[in-house]
This record gives sequence, structure tokens and C-alpha cells, in this order.
Amino acid sequence: MTPPINGPGNRLRGIFAAVLTPQRDDLSCDNDLLALHCGRLLSEGCDGVSLFGTTGEGPAFSVEERCAGLEAVLEAGVPAERILPGTGAASPADTLALSRHALSVGCRNLLVMPPFFFKDVGDEGVFRCYADLIERVGDPRMRLYIYNFPDVTGLWVRPDVVARLIDAFAELVAGVKDSSGDWDYVTRLIGNFPALSMFTGWETLLPRLLAAGGAGNVSGMANVIPNVLRQLYERRPESDDDPLLAAVVDMVDAVSKRPVTPAIKALAANLRDEPSWRNMRPPLVPLERDDEVDLLRCFQRARERVGILPVP
Amino acid sequence: MTPPINGPGNRLRGIFAAVLTPQRDDLSCDNDLLALHCGRLLSEGCDGVSLFGTTGEGPAFSVEERCAGLEAVLEAGVPAERILPGTGAASPADTLALSRHALSVGCRNLLVMPPFFFKDVGDEGVFRCYADLIERVGDPRMRLYIYNFPDVTGLWVRPDVVARLIDAFAELVAGVKDSSGDWDYVTRLIGNFPALSMFTGWETLLPRLLAAGGAGNVSGMANVIPNVLRQLYERRPESDDDPLLAAVVDMVDAVSKRPVTPAIKALAANLRDEPSWRNMRPPLVPLERDDEVDLLRCFQRARERVGILPVP
Repeated sequence: MTPPINGPGNRLRGIFAAVLTPQRDDLSCDNDLLALHCGRLLSEGCDGVSLFGTTGEGPAFSVEERCAGLEAVLEAGVPAERILPGTGAASPADTLALSRHALSVGCRNLLVMPPFFFKDVGDEGVFRCYADLIERVGDPRMRLYIYNFPDVTGLWVRPDVVARLIDAFAELVAGVKDSSGDWDYVTRLIGNFPALSMFTGWETLLPRLLAAGGAGNVSGMANVIPNVLRQLYERRPESDDDPLLAAVVDMVDAVSKRPVTPAIKALAANLRDEPSWRNMRPPLVPLERDDEVDLLRCFQRARERVGILPVP
Repeated sequence: MTPPINGPGNRLRGIFAAVLTPQRDDLSCDNDLLALHCGRLLSEGCDGVSLFGTTGEGPAFSVEERCAGLEAVLEAGVPAERILPGTGAASPADTLALSRHALSVGCRNLLVMPPFFFKDVGDEGVFRCYADLIERVGDPRMRLYIYNFPDVTGLWVRPDVVARLIDAFAELVAGVKDSSGDWDYVTRLIGNFPALSMFTGWETLLPRLLAAGGAGNVSGMANVIPNVLRQLYERRPESDDDPLLAAVVDMVDAVSKRPVTPAIKALAANLRDEPSWRNMRPPLVPLERDDEVDLLRCFQRARERVGILPVP
């Protein structure tokens, strides 16, 4: 792995896969395949792995299941500094338990989504979620990566809230992952807080983000095209006409038109030749067979156009 | 308690308080006050209590906290058949654990919200959530009350899904609590499934719902006006001009203009003279002092107009 994952002040940079969570036919977590998959992703071009986020169906699992998954990945030899565990949950009590556990097993970088049940929540409530968490964890090693994803949480972690958190907790607030894709939000954060590691959830924004001073991509697509995203990260094409970027845009479009986790799981099942990737917990359901075939066709076409080899 | 809580086929009817969850200053659950409050509500006019729903901030608590709260209420002597525990959670694993626990301590009636993290979920996914739960619980004593609240879950439990569940599980599907307030939805369910216990989350719809064949109200306002709702349930005024109904409309309007749980907690703190009701977990935050005073004034005015005595 060529590039350092640590930017200035030991902050994360690079391509982090938002790892899918494999499940057996009874929908229990398949921690063996999870650990195997994380190891593969690192050898295929990812700088790190983020577990139990949105693509990883994090909120579908219990605290115990999420702790066991993280431990399995560590036991398989993935270094703790290459893991960005998602520890957000609907309950602040669960977020606290998950965060303490991650620190106790050596993972200091935590990706934390705010609680996502209550709607019409104001900035004060969002600030208190993060402030309470940092105070209750009470561990100066902790590095918080704020996860902004208004489409699923129903709220924005606004720049003013990020500013208050940095004022209160300084270097413990290390970064933001934005999945809104709102470019004004991203550039305002980079402009106001140049020391923050700014990640995007959108693969298509990666070159633009890096050019603007951002840190990288926490990417669901990295489960199936880690090598492509590695190239994108290294080459940083400046023009939208770049064939590699255009191919990624087409692949992301094909996935985004569908429910995202079922779509990426369908791709993983095909590209990795591991059918159990199609297992997922309700309310998510696998793609219909015809839709899966159609998605795979779009995907292969985009890949062949730029001569990208299949991953394995 | 005069009216039977059990309708035909032992299904629930009446006024169920959507019980607030009291918290100490460190935001841990105050199970002593929870148990005391539930006992009070039953003696003040409620037929039953529903724990850890939306008003009760259910998703803000861990599985362990929710189990301990239910056990405390039972240990204080509240009969299991008067308790409708909310067992819905973001994780199907947590919903399963909470549901099994409730049955293990004698509560057969379960109010279950579907998982609320993933958006754009189709009917098949919603059906599978409930079907999987019933199959995994595997207890013929279980009685499911489906909780439809699209504003917070981001999905509808459509009548077609209810129909499929009744086809598959017959009397185990006992009722629906609707908090959408959509009258077409309510009347369609009552018309199609007359044996279902149909509850509304809206106090103002109660007389109309009862006239249409519905079962009652799972009510956040019952925390502070159980006696008023008892009168409304008994008298069932047919006209919107009825002074009692008009007063309830004004009180519900005053609360609904604000974040609901903070508003009802502010009322409880004042009317019960127990300041700790103002404690709540972020992202919820207490009402500002001026807003609390204003709310209390609206509320007292509506109450005095119809000569309703304060609760305690």
C-alpha cells in the first residue's frame, strides 16, 4: 500500500471502503467472510475499511453483532489504524457502547452518524449528541469523524455545529464524511477548517474534492471497484471528460438508480462469485433477478470501455 | 377501571398512554418514577400504558434499558395485560430481543414500529420485517400491533401489507396504531379488517374513530390529561363544536406546534410538579423557558374553559 493513510496530524486520507456486511442464509453476520473481504479490499487498492456504516447496513445489527464483526476483522490481521468503524446508532447509549468498544480494541478513529429517529432536530440537539458522546467516552485518543447524511438521518450537521465542536474539543474532532453531495457544504467545511479530513461518500466527486484540499472517499463502490478508485485517487483527473472518471460516473449512476446496498450486494455476488452477498436484512430486499442482470450489464459495459479488469 | 380493555377476541380497546420516559439528571432511566407514573395514569383514567414508543423516546434507549424499564413497571404491580410495550427498533435483531423479552415477562401485546433507518423501502421489505419477526418469535401467544408512523419511519405500512400479514398469521395480527392521522388509511383498515383493533395516535380523532368502529387512542397527551381523554372516550361527542373536544383540539394544537416529546415533558414537569421530566436525551432538547411558559398558558386556558381540574 503506497500512500500513507495518515495526513497531517495523523488524520485519515485515501480510499476507505464502506464495507458491505455479509450474512449467512439465516441473516446472521458472516464474520469470516467479512474479515476475508476486508483483507482483500486492502490488497486491491483501498487504504482502509469502514465497517457498519450505511452501505454496511450498520443500524440493522445489534451492538453485540457490531462489536463481534469488528473483533473478527482485527483478529484476521487488519491493522486497527486502517479501520474506521461506524459507531452511530439510533440510541446514544448504543453509540456510546460501540465507541467505547472500538477504542478498547485499538480503533481510535470513529465514524459517527447522529441519532436518526427524531425529526425536526435543531443544531443545539445535534451539537449535544456529539459533545455528550466525546465527554462520556472521555478518552483523549478518540478521533471523531462526523457523518453527515441528511437523506437518511433527516438532519444536517451544519458547519456552525462543526465549529462549536472544534472549539470545545480541538483535535478530537478530526474529520467529516459528507454523503449529501452538496458541494457548497463540502467547500465551506474545507475552507473554514483546513485541518479537518474531509471525505465524500460520492466517488464521482473524488477528483474535485482532492483538488479542493479534501482527504478522500468513504465509498460503497469500493467493495466492487477498489482498483478503479485507486487509479482515480492516484491520477486525480481534472476534466469531466476523462474516460476513467466518465466510467465511474456511469457505474455510480447505475447503482444510485436502485436501492444502493442491494445493488452493490448484487454486484459483489456476481463479481466475487459469492452468492451469499445477496443476503440482507429486511426492510432491505435483494434486487429482482432481471434488475440484477440489467445492472451487471451496465456495469460491465462501463468497465470494458476503459479496459478495467475485473477485481479478483 | 370501568371499561374492559379487551374487545372481541381479547383485543385491546380504550385509552393507552404513550408513556414519557423519565430520566435522572445524568439521563439514565428513572425506573422508579416510570413505574409510579404508570400506576398514576391507570388510576387517573387510562386503560393501559404503552412504553418506549415515540413519545417515550423508545429508540433513544438500549435494549437493556428498555427491558429493565418494562420489568420495573411490572414489579410495581401494573398488570401485564394493561401494558403495550413498544418493541420496534432500528435493528431487527433488537426488535426480536425486545419482543421475546416482553413475552417472557408476560406481555403478549406488542406495538411494533418497522425499522426506520433505510428509506425508499417497498411493501415487500415491510412485509418481511413483520413476517420475520413473527416467525422468529415463534410464540402463538404473541399479538402484534402494527405501528404506522410515516413521518418518523419514512415508510407506510400499507393496507395490502396488513392484508398479507393477516393471511399469513391470522389472529397474531391484532391491531394497528396509526399516527399518520390519514383518515382514508384509518377507515380503509377498519372497513377491510373489522376484527382488527384500530388505534389512532391523534387524540382529536378519537370520537370519530370510535364512531367508525375503531378501538381507541395510544396517546402522548394522556401523560398530562388522562382524565380529559377518559371523558372524551366515554362521552364520544359527535360534533366538532363540543366544548370538551374543542378544548382537546386546542391543547393538541399547542403541543403539535412544538417538538412533541419536549412539549409534553414540559407540561408534565409543571402539572406533576416534578422538574426531572424536563430531562431528555439528545438530539431532543428541553423547550426554552419562555416557550414552556407560553405552552403552559395555552394549555391552562383550554383546560379552564371547560372546567377541567388539574390531574393530580
